[in-house]
Amino acid sequence: MWDAQQAIIEANLSFYEAFATGDATAMARVWARNEPVVCIHPGWQPLYGRDQVLASWRAIFREDSPAIRCEGARVTFLDTVAHVTCVERIRAGKLAATNIFIQEEGVWRMVHHQASPFMDQPLPPSVIPPPGSLN
Amino acid sequence: MWDAQQAIIEANLSFYEAFATGDATAMARVWARNEPVVCIHPGWQPLYGRDQVLASWRAIFREDSPAIRCEGARVTFLDTVAHVTCVERIRAGKLAATNIFIQEEGVWRMVHHQASPFMDQPLPPSVIPPPGSLN
Repeated sequence: MWDAQQAIIEANLSFYEAFATGDATAMARVWARNEPVVCIHPGWQPLYGRDQVLASWRAIFREDSPAIRCEGARVTFLDTVAHVTCVERIRAGKLAATNIFIQEEGVWRMVHHQASPFMDQPLPPSVIPPPGSLN
Repeated sequence: MWDAQQAIIEANLSFYEAFATGDATAMARVWARNEPVVCIHPGWQPLYGRDQVLASWRAIFREDSPAIRCEGARVTFLDTVAHVTCVERIRAGKLAATNIFIQEEGVWRMVHHQASPFMDQPLPPSVIPPPGSLN
């Protein structure tokens, strides 16, 4: 489990490295080749299938190569699937992201990405976790 | 697979029924009891764990019971996990949502929800899928 956790954290980092450097080839390596994939960019409708998802990254990289970094990544295992939730920091603010990974040919590859902007707004008191409960 | 697909579509509908009616008890039934859960409401940071996630729904239902409905639900299977992507229609506009489900005690229960607003903006030409490719 620890090895899988490390492998997923590294796959997640590879995604953000490809993102931050605008490297479409590296981004293509991150995404699954055989499993169905979905990508929901901030403000976009869902995009389905490897061809459409990779085309969207190429279009984004033609416009901009954002200074993006991932913080607070948490891996959650669901049987043979894992997802990473994290905070993406960009110049304009912060986004909450979900990245789902599955193993293909022994390699953890991305099958789903969704990111949505958020503000550091106070949560209702009933939702604030007690100290230490998130460790 | 067909039976599983139907069961997941129904679990997804149960989620939106609980959401639209502001029924916290029904919402509690939708979410997994044993698996780790995560929820990313629009504009919120990720919330972790059943207690925090259900508290967030109770807080939301105290404020409002939104006229929400789900359209265009698509089920994607990833081994023993499935996710539904769909468009949520509310009065203020549209959101793209991901809902992940896993089986617990033979019942498909939600382990992850994320929704993010989007506008019907034109996609870059390279990203527009060819006619029929999404069927």
